[in-house]
Amino acid sequence: MNAPAIWDTLQQNRAVRLKKAQQQLGDGLSGKIFPAGRIADLLHAVLEPGDRVCLEGNNQKQADFLAKALAGLDSTRIHDLHILQSVLALPEHLDIFEKGIASRLDFSFSGPQSGRLAKLASAGKLNIGAIHTYLELYARYFVDLTPRVALVAAQAADRQGNLYTGPNTEDTPTIIEATAFKGGIVIAQVNEIVDKLPRVDIPSDWVDFVVQAPTPHYIEPLFTRDPALISEIQILMAMMAIKGIYAEYQVERLNHGIGFDTAAIELLLPTYAASLGLKGKIARYWALNPHPALIPAIEAGFVESIHSFGSELGMEDYIRARPDIFFVGADGSMRSNRALSQAAGHYACDMFIGSTLQIDLQGNSSTATLGRIAGFGGAPNMGADARGRRHASAAWLKAGQQARAGKNQIPRGQKLVVQVVETFREHMQPAFVETLDAWKLAEQANMAIPPVMIYGDDVTHILTEEGIANLLLCRSDEEREQAIRGVAGYTPVGLARDRRMVENLRDRGIIQRAEDLGIDKRSATRDLLAAKSMKDLVRASGGLYQPPKRFRNW
Amino acid sequence: MNAPAIWDTLQQNRAVRLKKAQQQLGDGLSGKIFPAGRIADLLHAVLEPGDRVCLEGNNQKQADFLAKALAGLDSTRIHDLHILQSVLALPEHLDIFEKGIASRLDFSFSGPQSGRLAKLASAGKLNIGAIHTYLELYARYFVDLTPRVALVAAQAADRQGNLYTGPNTEDTPTIIEATAFKGGIVIAQVNEIVDKLPRVDIPSDWVDFVVQAPTPHYIEPLFTRDPALISEIQILMAMMAIKGIYAEYQVERLNHGIGFDTAAIELLLPTYAASLGLKGKIARYWALNPHPALIPAIEAGFVESIHSFGSELGMEDYIRARPDIFFVGADGSMRSNRALSQAAGHYACDMFIGSTLQIDLQGNSSTATLGRIAGFGGAPNMGADARGRRHASAAWLKAGQQARAGKNQIPRGQKLVVQVVETFREHMQPAFVETLDAWKLAEQANMAIPPVMIYGDDVTHILTEEGIANLLLCRSDEEREQAIRGVAGYTPVGLARDRRMVENLRDRGIIQRAEDLGIDKRSATRDLLAAKSMKDLVRASGGLYQPPKRFRNW
Repeated sequence: MNAPAIWDTLQQNRAVRLKKAQQQLGDGLSGKIFPAGRIADLLHAVLEPGDRVCLEGNNQKQADFLAKALAGLDSTRIHDLHILQSVLALPEHLDIFEKGIASRLDFSFSGPQSGRLAKLASAGKLNIGAIHTYLELYARYFVDLTPRVALVAAQAADRQGNLYTGPNTEDTPTIIEATAFKGGIVIAQVNEIVDKLPRVDIPSDWVDFVVQAPTPHYIEPLFTRDPALISEIQILMAMMAIKGIYAEYQVERLNHGIGFDTAAIELLLPTYAASLGLKGKIARYWALNPHPALIPAIEAGFVESIHSFGSELGMEDYIRARPDIFFVGADGSMRSNRALSQAAGHYACDMFIGSTLQIDLQGNSSTATLGRIAGFGGAPNMGADARGRRHASAAWLKAGQQARAGKNQIPRGQKLVVQVVETFREHMQPAFVETLDAWKLAEQANMAIPPVMIYGDDVTHILTEEGIANLLLCRSDEEREQAIRGVAGYTPVGLARDRRMVENLRDRGIIQRAEDLGIDKRSATRDLLAAKSMKDLVRASGGLYQPPKRFRNW
Repeated sequence: MNAPAIWDTLQQNRAVRLKKAQQQLGDGLSGKIFPAGRIADLLHAVLEPGDRVCLEGNNQKQADFLAKALAGLDSTRIHDLHILQSVLALPEHLDIFEKGIASRLDFSFSGPQSGRLAKLASAGKLNIGAIHTYLELYARYFVDLTPRVALVAAQAADRQGNLYTGPNTEDTPTIIEATAFKGGIVIAQVNEIVDKLPRVDIPSDWVDFVVQAPTPHYIEPLFTRDPALISEIQILMAMMAIKGIYAEYQVERLNHGIGFDTAAIELLLPTYAASLGLKGKIARYWALNPHPALIPAIEAGFVESIHSFGSELGMEDYIRARPDIFFVGADGSMRSNRALSQAAGHYACDMFIGSTLQIDLQGNSSTATLGRIAGFGGAPNMGADARGRRHASAAWLKAGQQARAGKNQIPRGQKLVVQVVETFREHMQPAFVETLDAWKLAEQANMAIPPVMIYGDDVTHILTEEGIANLLLCRSDEEREQAIRGVAGYTPVGLARDRRMVENLRDRGIIQRAEDLGIDKRSATRDLLAAKSMKDLVRASGGLYQPPKRFRNW
């Protein structure tokens, strides 16, 4: 080392960028508020080619104004950005790559953009660093993927630059903490600038610029399921879940997926589960977005607490009126927090139950589809045995005992990870397969390993309309395979079962049919649903729930 | 349901408590600042028997004034509190139970108080809910262990009640978020009340009362290891770790334990590791407290980034002068965050390496000692395979390949979890045992399962002065047992090895001795340490590091 080392390059560089931005602001303006019409000037001033930029795109809330502005920059000046983004939901998110402004991407989920993402990747316009589960991506913000610039969205700012995120707090605090405390620059788009915020969610010290967007940020109602669309097959599966798993393991703390299968379970809590005497015994504590389908269970007193990753459009007034259940601020509106709720889903829940698209003979499941790079979201984090967990609960101990009975292993609990799936999905595609499409996708997209959503050795139960396969009780790979075939119905995988072995598994309680659980299939009717329509949900909420227009069919 | 349901009992009850506290304040005072001399009145006003109270006790920072005040309350008025506390470090933390003010405890670690804790538990004065790893305990704050009242510590407050935590941010934001957003009450002790804070770490909206404590809150320098106390055996082990594991797997992102073993590794990075050409190739990104022993590696340019759980006494000025490396605010002082750093340690690190007290023949390790209930801290979270992880790295893929080679399993990566231990610990107690003391402790303390720190199936390598056992490569329980015996030296477990099998394991590279790694044992001298004393560390820091008095031996 000849020249004395310099240890504040980030801070020095930050000062240069801020100065450029201040020059843009000119004399007429001061402070942190920047005019929306000049957002491109601000971004050109604070961005440098190759920057790591965290663009806030959550499951629901989108920094859409900033995304559009980024997509409109001059790519001869700003290029090769490395985008960090938990969800790519809007066309602009990919326009940024199409136009050569960004070239590298680390992300978690890309639902509606997954087809175009795959095309851009194979055209070499977009280099994927990695696909993550949410909490894992946030974790890297503090280790090797710290953002240089963060572009986030909030509901409102005051004139000092304090932010109120509103109910959709989501990723905002985590993104800003990683950026602001490592010499980065934070720009927030807000819907309004006010004199006094309902509450401060983010202190102004952590925010460099605030821009009032011309239109409110986009929010997607991703967790609303119309009860009218729930089928009787789903009701039957929900009954088996409640009696065969929730009651059997006394599951008190849990997370539900967002499919109709789990919406059916939510709507059966105040009816079927109550008739089994399960109120106060199961499903008391949740890490869950405010699912409208949970309203009847909340009203019936089934639910004690819900901590949320984000909010859900239309649930604002209901949440405000149920502060004993939800996490709200002193102002009455919800505070969500995706990072903390993912930690809760990982470590404080006894069960994750969700749907999937494909399951193989080892129980590995995947939502990968050829030609699409959809990513993982939160499922791998919540649908994995949390091996660092050390506190016991009845459910966790029982699952651990079942997994280890007769084995020479030190006792240990285990998380319940339930995959619920009908044997055939849309277009009569079998859900059970010999080989996951994930293998081909990995080859197609040049991934190091196939993109498995939940690994077979983390799955404890597979639930189909044909019954429950309890993989915890299987004692060999062969038993596991036959247990899976045994609930795979008329799919080729199901038809290839060894009938004698499957009967033996049934005798041992490893496979349970509806009748083994004392469930009369004929009773699985829509009459069991505590709400049969969106209107019923509104009624159950005492008119507090206000569904978005697209769900109002009356 | 006859009477209309009430959904805001928490808020109503909060209002009653706040009113009582305001009455205590009287007319002469207003706002959130409460006089220290009347802290008992405040606590009597806002607490109710049976409350869940989160008392901030971190590894380092202690809300000691509030703990003392709690211990001094009238137990006929305030009793049966349920204490949530990550670390029980001070006598007051147990006085609260001794005096009958609290009766139930959920916690993570109790180092210095572990003996007394066990006595109180067996005397029935203290009912342990569960022992957690840190992140797991925080997760439960948002699910089924939400605090009713939080008693926290910060460096300073302004007159509005905004808090500056200083470098030891630690648990504070997480505790306050769980409490303030579920209708709870937050009381902060601060060292000083100022007009303008260096920065806002916690917005005043989240804080109900601020009390200026008569003395600054206690901080324990827990991560300082005097290089003078590092032995040549530890240096040999550090050389094996660097060459046999760090270099072998290209470990770039990691967490170190706090023992002398890992301090030795830190001090060998700029010397031995540099001589192997490993600078820029290993140990670049850390989730770690600011260990003074890492100063020479930082100065040598080995380290790119460190995110910290908490700070370390004496490192403040050094951190401030190295903002490219550490996470600091715009004011220049560190912002730590235990919850986020634990998430980083879990999901964004390729390796956890730490010491233990006992290892059994399956590789399960434990620090449990009879008559003490010490708890886990962060090790189970960081020392477990993070099965929800989906992003790949060279280290993670290689570990996964080694674990699965020749098995019919879908490819998957794996975290490196290294247990480093000398075959005999203090008082010639063997570190390798047939049966962990944890079994007896579980019986003694009536635990559901033995308190294992790291489970054998999560451990990938065991490193002793006799060599490295790579458990990833073992193909049977028997091989694993012999691999462990093969590095267990002259302990009874080591002496009972099957010599032929151990030689076979060595031929296959499952056991590696120093000589197998090309390490000359005679070269393992203290000359290799980049700093040999505390004074050397201060010198390496350019005088910026200011060790606490007890470490100043010159």
